Amino acid sequence: MKMTILTLFPEMFDGLFSHSILKQAQDRDVVSFHVVNFREFSKDRHQRVDDYPYGGGGGMVLTPQPLFDAVKHVKEQAKGKSPRVVLLCPQGEPYSQKKAEEFAQEDELILICGHYEGFDERIREHLVTDEVSIGDYVLTGGEIGAMVIADSVTRLQQGALGNETSAVTDSHSTGLLEYPHYTRPAEFEGMKVPDVLLSGHHAKIEAWRRQESLKRTFTRRPDMLSKADLTPKDQAIIDKFTKE
Amino acid sequence: MKMTILTLFPEMFDGLFSHSILKQAQDRDVVSFHVVNFREFSKDRHQRVDDYPYGGGGGMVLTPQPLFDAVKHVKEQAKGKSPRVVLLCPQGEPYSQKKAEEFAQEDELILICGHYEGFDERIREHLVTDEVSIGDYVLTGGEIGAMVIADSVTRLQQGALGNETSAVTDSHSTGLLEYPHYTRPAEFEGMKVPDVLLSGHHAKIEAWRRQESLKRTFTRRPDMLSKADLTPKDQAIIDKFTKE
Repeated sequence: MKMTILTLFPEMFDGLFSHSILKQAQDRDVVSFHVVNFREFSKDRHQRVDDYPYGGGGGMVLTPQPLFDAVKHVKEQAKGKSPRVVLLCPQGEPYSQKKAEEFAQEDELILICGHYEGFDERIREHLVTDEVSIGDYVLTGGEIGAMVIADSVTRLQQGALGNETSAVTDSHSTGLLEYPHYTRPAEFEGMKVPDVLLSGHHAKIEAWRRQESLKRTFTRRPDMLSKADLTPKDQAIIDKFTKE
Repeated sequence: MKMTILTLFPEMFDGLFSHSILKQAQDRDVVSFHVVNFREFSKDRHQRVDDYPYGGGGGMVLTPQPLFDAVKHVKEQAKGKSPRVVLLCPQGEPYSQKKAEEFAQEDELILICGHYEGFDERIREHLVTDEVSIGDYVLTGGEIGAMVIADSVTRLQQGALGNETSAVTDSHSTGLLEYPHYTRPAEFEGMKVPDVLLSGHHAKIEAWRRQESLKRTFTRRPDMLSKADLTPKDQAIIDKFTKE
């Protein structure tokens, strides 16, 4: 899979792509990242990429020309395919694991990172195929959002993670929050591991984990329960929580 | 403001803190970032920080000792204050602009980044003050989440952004999605700027922008309208959309 990131701050990605699991995934040819400064495509004499907004107001707006030409350039290398063009912005569709799974099916993605001041609307209307927001908070630019997509999509690629099972057992993959984990020592500064986990009784451990997973989701994210895949037994446990 | 990030991949932050607005904010002494590898605090002979989970199952779990000692070390430097300890994890409270504003009031934050395999539960229960999730998607670790907090909190600090007004006029700060922006040229490859923005009629421009902002929020994020600060006139516009 190929991901091209269009940004005015390419150096922001240095750490991410030259270390961590994204580096390993690149070394294994699972994914390739291309970070491009779209300022290089500006036809302005001073390589400007922004201008004052029509109608007045604060901040500068990214002009259409550099981004249209940068996307055109990337598409020309795509050999007849037309990769999806994803704009990171607060007005976008909330990014979710479902969207990550959808993007992970693509051969190629183009990710556009802007400034907080905003994009010329023609970029949204005529250039991009997807507008995505990683959450309801304000960031200085789209770069960290592009990192979220790069990371979440890469880890879903076959061979990206050492342990193949890990990609599907985490929170938001199963629809429930994960149960509590414990490891050695059995007692640390007076804090103990629950007895059931030391019992060696696998059925009891499984039942405890499922119950804790349901309890945590019920307490912290009740909104997730309506979309989760629950058995009648799970439902009985939740009914008990509701009564308590 | 001081932010200490505890991570096993400190290099992932190289690009972020040595470029971009976060670099500028550091240069202006608005904020200071300290990235610490908590592996250095491991008392294990091989500096291990993880171990097998009690009760079986895939993946490794982060052991309590290195993180407890790393946090203790940072707190000892905090001169009697007790900074909040924030854990980035999928089971956390969904991060929002409101939470960013809350964190921005603090003098100091400690951010803990883990692996996807999980933390020993005693870390959650006895060490951290806040568990935060940046969104309903799975990432390989907490590092990108820490970047989200570092960025969103820094830009709210006095003096971090050049333009003081920018921090409060963006989407998620006003409770509505932003209206469309346009800049020069007035026509680009056949795509035109709306006439109203070229009219110079300020009251009409303001009315158009408010309507577009409401329309975009109504269409894309109706969930946001219930929390937004709406005038009776706004409400009348929305009622019209509902009928259409």
